Order: sequence, then structure tokens, then C-alpha cells
Amino acid sequence: MRVLGIDPGLRNMGWGVIEAEGSRLSHVANGICHSVGEDLATRLLSLHEQLTEVVVQYQPDQAAVENTFVNKDGVGTLKLGQARGIALLVPAQAGLLVGEYAPNKVKKTVVGVGHAEKHQVEHMVKLQLPGVKINGADAADALAIAICHAHYTPRPGTGLEAALRRANA
Amino acid sequence: MRVLGIDPGLRNMGWGVIEAEGSRLSHVANGICHSVGEDLATRLLSLHEQLTEVVVQYQPDQAAVENTFVNKDGVGTLKLGQARGIALLVPAQAGLLVGEYAPNKVKKTVVGVGHAEKHQVEHMVKLQLPGVKINGADAADALAIAICHAHYTPRPGTGLEAALRRANA
Repeated sequence: MRVLGIDPGLRNMGWGVIEAEGSRLSHVANGICHSVGEDLATRLLSLHEQLTEVVVQYQPDQAAVENTFVNKDGVGTLKLGQARGIALLVPAQAGLLVGEYAPNKVKKTVVGVGHAEKHQVEHMVKLQLPGVKINGADAADALAIAICHAHYTPRPGTGLEAALRRANA
Repeated sequence: MRVLGIDPGLRNMGWGVIEAEGSRLSHVANGICHSVGEDLATRLLSLHEQLTEVVVQYQPDQAAVENTFVNKDGVGTLKLGQARGIALLVPAQAGLLVGEYAPNKVKKTVVGVGHAEKHQVEHMVKLQLPGVKINGADAADALAIAICHAHYTPRPGTGLEAALRRANA
């Protein structure tokens, strides 16, 4: 099963693709989509195009998006929400199941504690994906989200996984 | 010039299309996209599909989206942001300019005061678009946004408008 993880952001949208075979994980690719354009609609369009290109190129089977932390900064939350709309839309357009995970759940799964520092997450991502070269902090987060999804998703061969595949066929 | 106005919302996304010739406005169509699906990604996908259908059917030249009010409810702001991402993306994908207007500016343009009640907005929309049948409050807001955009946008035949058309050709 190939999983696309997405760390949504309006300026930088991290993405990471991993392959999960049973409990064995391997790295496929990771990167960051940078929004370009002067107005918001154009920036969202550029994120949509870049993320669609990732899906077309790496053909994931499922996707997962970080369930954004909601803070007290309304303007920041709105911006993040707009980017997150694109992050959820692109895999849904490709017919993929899209999982959502809270940041604490991602950290707990990858590092073992819910309040891990960023460098701990990156360290554990590297340990779990031997040989990975990470293209920035947002890409590391995206790989962590993909690892989290692989951990919580039914594995190939189980009854539920087979049922999901049939439902999506 | 045909203008599509959009009032973004995750549950109900209002839309309205008007024709603006000089200072003369006329109604083309209006309605509401209702999101369907159990998970967020599927709901956003359904909004994207319905709004794309509106653009394909009514072929607007420009679009305008309400610049959402940011309140203290982070969860609500995030939901609205996600829907707003779709509202901005769809016209941008069709190559349209997308204007953004604060609710107060829309009300001031359509009613004359920035803190108008909803029924005043609907009343003035009806006065300015003779014969219009409005399909709900969100569609009335969307028509008001389209009227506001028509008011602030360079009219056909002016130098700026011609330059914009050339730039988009």
C-alpha cells in the first residue's frame, strides 16, 4: 500500500510518499509545494496543480492529512483552512480514502510521545525510512503523517482492507 | 460582463450569476451547493464538483468571493476556510479573475450601510435584479457579492478592462 501524507500550509505544503508492506515501511519520495502568485486564488490554484502532479507521478493508494491545530489567531486559521481544503480535495479527486490525524496522534505514533519536538519527529522518520533524504521540515512532517496512517490503516490481505478495496473498485 | 458571486460555506455554498452591462445589471441564475458525504474530503469534493458545474453551465467572465468574517471560534473558522479554499479554486481553475470583498463592503455597496440586516440585503438585491427569484439566504448573499464586484470592477471598453482581457487571453 502506497500512502501520501500531506502537511497543509498556504505558503509551503509538505508531502511525503511511503510504501507500507505489512509492518515494513520504505520511502518513495518527499518534497514541498510552494504556492506562487499574487492573489489568494492563484496561490491555491498553484498548490492544487503541484499536489495533483505529485498524485499523478507517485500514484498513492491512500492519503492522510494533518488535522490542523486550531489556535486563537483567526486570520492564520483561515489561511490554513483554505490550504487544507486543497490538501483534502486533491486526493479525493483521485478517488483516494483520506485519513485525518491530529498532530499529537502523529507524534505519539512516530516518536512515542504526543509532545515531541520537531527534530525528534525528523529523527524518528529517518530511522523508520532508511536512506531517506528529507527536503525540509514540512516534508518530514508529511512523512510522519504517512507513517501514522500506515500504522492505523488495515493492512493488505485483511478482511477489512479487502472490503475497502472492493468498495472503491 | 458576467459575474459569479460565491458565499462560501462548508454545508451550504451560495452562488449567484449576474450580467453587468455598463451600470445595468440583470439576473442570470442563483442557487446553493449542498455538500454531501460523510468525511470532510468527500464533502469538499462534492462542493468542488457542484461549483465547477455552475461555472461550466453559466460561463462567467469574472468571479468574487466573500472575504470571510474571522470570529473567535477556531473550529468554525477552519471549516469555513476549507470551504473558501474550494470557492477560490474553482473560478481560478477556469482562468477567471477572483475578487475578494469583506462582508461590510458588500453590504455598503448593495444597501448603502455596512451593518445592514440580512433581509435588507435580500430586498436590495431584488430591487437591483428585477424579476429575480432567490433560492435561499446564501444565494442572496452570493448575488450581493456579484453586484459588489460588478460595481468595483472596470467596465468593458475601459483601458484597464481591455488590458486585463489581453493579459488573460
